[in-house]
Amino acid sequence: MKKQNIGILGMGIVATGFCQTYFLNQGEIDKKMGTTFEFKKVLVKNKDKKRISELPQSIYVDDFDQFDLKELDIVVELMGGVSPACEYIKKALEAGCHVVTANKELMAKKGKELIQIAHKNNVLLRYEASVGGGIPLIGTINDSLTSNKIVKLMGILNGTTNYILTKMTKEKIEFDAALKRAQTLGFAESNPTADVDGFDAAYKLAILSKDAFGVIPDPEEISKQGIRNISIEDIEYGLELGYKIKLLAIGERSNAHVELSVQPTFIPIDHPIASVNNEYNALYIEGNSVGEIMLYGKGAGAMPTGSAVLSDVVDIVVKKSDYIGSCMAQNIVVKNIGFSAYYVRMEVLDLPGVLGQIAVAFGDYGISLDSVVQRARGGQFAPLVFITHDVERMKLNDALRTIASKEYVNEIQSIIKVVK
Amino acid sequence: MKKQNIGILGMGIVATGFCQTYFLNQGEIDKKMGTTFEFKKVLVKNKDKKRISELPQSIYVDDFDQFDLKELDIVVELMGGVSPACEYIKKALEAGCHVVTANKELMAKKGKELIQIAHKNNVLLRYEASVGGGIPLIGTINDSLTSNKIVKLMGILNGTTNYILTKMTKEKIEFDAALKRAQTLGFAESNPTADVDGFDAAYKLAILSKDAFGVIPDPEEISKQGIRNISIEDIEYGLELGYKIKLLAIGERSNAHVELSVQPTFIPIDHPIASVNNEYNALYIEGNSVGEIMLYGKGAGAMPTGSAVLSDVVDIVVKKSDYIGSCMAQNIVVKNIGFSAYYVRMEVLDLPGVLGQIAVAFGDYGISLDSVVQRARGGQFAPLVFITHDVERMKLNDALRTIASKEYVNEIQSIIKVVK
Repeated sequence: MKKQNIGILGMGIVATGFCQTYFLNQGEIDKKMGTTFEFKKVLVKNKDKKRISELPQSIYVDDFDQFDLKELDIVVELMGGVSPACEYIKKALEAGCHVVTANKELMAKKGKELIQIAHKNNVLLRYEASVGGGIPLIGTINDSLTSNKIVKLMGILNGTTNYILTKMTKEKIEFDAALKRAQTLGFAESNPTADVDGFDAAYKLAILSKDAFGVIPDPEEISKQGIRNISIEDIEYGLELGYKIKLLAIGERSNAHVELSVQPTFIPIDHPIASVNNEYNALYIEGNSVGEIMLYGKGAGAMPTGSAVLSDVVDIVVKKSDYIGSCMAQNIVVKNIGFSAYYVRMEVLDLPGVLGQIAVAFGDYGISLDSVVQRARGGQFAPLVFITHDVERMKLNDALRTIASKEYVNEIQSIIKVVK
Repeated sequence: MKKQNIGILGMGIVATGFCQTYFLNQGEIDKKMGTTFEFKKVLVKNKDKKRISELPQSIYVDDFDQFDLKELDIVVELMGGVSPACEYIKKALEAGCHVVTANKELMAKKGKELIQIAHKNNVLLRYEASVGGGIPLIGTINDSLTSNKIVKLMGILNGTTNYILTKMTKEKIEFDAALKRAQTLGFAESNPTADVDGFDAAYKLAILSKDAFGVIPDPEEISKQGIRNISIEDIEYGLELGYKIKLLAIGERSNAHVELSVQPTFIPIDHPIASVNNEYNALYIEGNSVGEIMLYGKGAGAMPTGSAVLSDVVDIVVKKSDYIGSCMAQNIVVKNIGFSAYYVRMEVLDLPGVLGQIAVAFGDYGISLDSVVQRARGGQFAPLVFITHDVERMKLNDALRTIASKEYVNEIQSIIKVVK
């Protein structure tokens, strides 16, 4: 069998992990494939920089025109970002190359178009590593659960925010201190917006929505709330009430619509996803026959992510077959009603009767309460914490606007989704 | 495309779940396959019994000779047991049918031979549902982690024993009471041996060993210890020391050998597998590049298991390709050294100096201790609990024989593996 000619776009940490995994296990991988890789070209910014010793310096190029697609069987895109990665992948697919990518932003924004180009050119496009790093989420959804209609996804898809929330919870430190810790340890970027404001998790949820529900959202349609405003006080009230806080990407499919959101969420302490700590990721999948399954592992890092990229390449070489995937849903729109239980913390005047009046105000909007925590602090104001039963978010907002206007309410401080 | 002609061997709860899942999602499944199923024959003991309304009574037969293999594309074996399932599967493979089975005992004992027959006849044999019910363990190991060398497996593979141990832990009831509870709820058979003595988990571990390590054990070679002797006292000492008890199937591969065991094991309370409760199963997989991942879900039940069987059938119809799988290991033998930390509970005379003398006796055998719990109970005897550092099981046994012979030792009551 002829060698598989590989070209790599980019040589950052994931590409390094991809190559290192191959050289680590080359004997067994070549045996499984019945062939071997020939690394033909690597496109980088600085072609003279020394990198992996197994690759000759001569294959590095700094100009895409020298990245000769005609000599390649498989292009591995690990440069990240939408442009120019998108143009390069299109050219590779049109030149008859299979493509493997770990690029979540690109797949979330341009996945549909790229998949169509791949189909048209009779080549394969794989992207396991774009969601959940080393955890085989895409393969599980597309190939292992094909007998199921997937009705719900609930994932910790961003390791940085999970690390920060874990530190806040365990060490009782505030967001800013936990973020600094994460930055010092390399778990968070110096500009942490993509992670802490939920963009990264939303891109990943967009990809999963396509594969699990057959619904391709514009990432803008995904309702996003980050973790900057989560306070130790909320975390501690949550624990007292039996909940842990996680930044969850949630997708739910009904017959008429798909609801997609990324937001800090309280989940019961004994729920399996509550014990996913530090930089680990997990995805909870509910199928209409299999019930609930969960996949857990490292959602980032050179070797885990590189290993997922390499498994995709091996699959292309051995099976030459596409994901089975979901049927594309017809007439199902993205719609965020936010029908859920909610945690609400407010600061009120510490006077008799206030709790009762607020409970009545909730009742006026048809909102019933699951739990209440009231605690005098000996000052003018006292905190009040409520967990509601299921209610539409709009209706809750209406009720809270009315409640906030009362003279005995100083401030509504937190509104957090609760999964029971 | 012609219809897929399906024959089913057996119509118990898994077969019912298989059919129900198909009829539940038939629209989408047929679309994914580009074809539909025609159920041709179902082999049962009593062909006149009323079963699934979607299947005509006329297709039930009670004689394998009437189960016409020539008209079938795929045979689904869900009768269980080694014989006659093994002979029927062989005939089906030799007649050119693909086969899907959920039969763990058969795959553990005859899997190698059946796979060879399938290869020889150029047909596929799939068995996802034989391990972990609805959790896609076999697919993940064989197709999603192909870039990795898998070095360790650690699984809760038996729901009955996990249910019993969860009840014992949470409700502080002894084994016999918890078993009765499980039997009443249908989680345990009236003859619970296969589950509580570790046979069921050992069959599953044998299958996983082939796929993950490329080593096919005789199920007899797997060291087995059940949960009958686990007492509340051990569970409570474990919790005090930060451990939960689980019946774990553990496989570890080194360069020279594979170690395979099923035994009650203490694992740290914050380990993800420690929060797998009730009848749920989970498999922890360690790859040499991806690191640690865990898959969690329902390991039994009509719909979860039936859904896994059906996903296998869909995969055969759509992809017509075999698992990528592991390379078969050469010269790697099964060997159980039991190099591990251990929990040891003993009853000793409540006299000064006893603890010191026992610690010295451990030291004489080169065994160092990680923790000790000593607690006077005001009687003649007192319990002593030790957790050792890593030691070979044989050496520990030698030390404990010496210690048991001392006049101040009444009895060695428990020896339990500890994963740190």
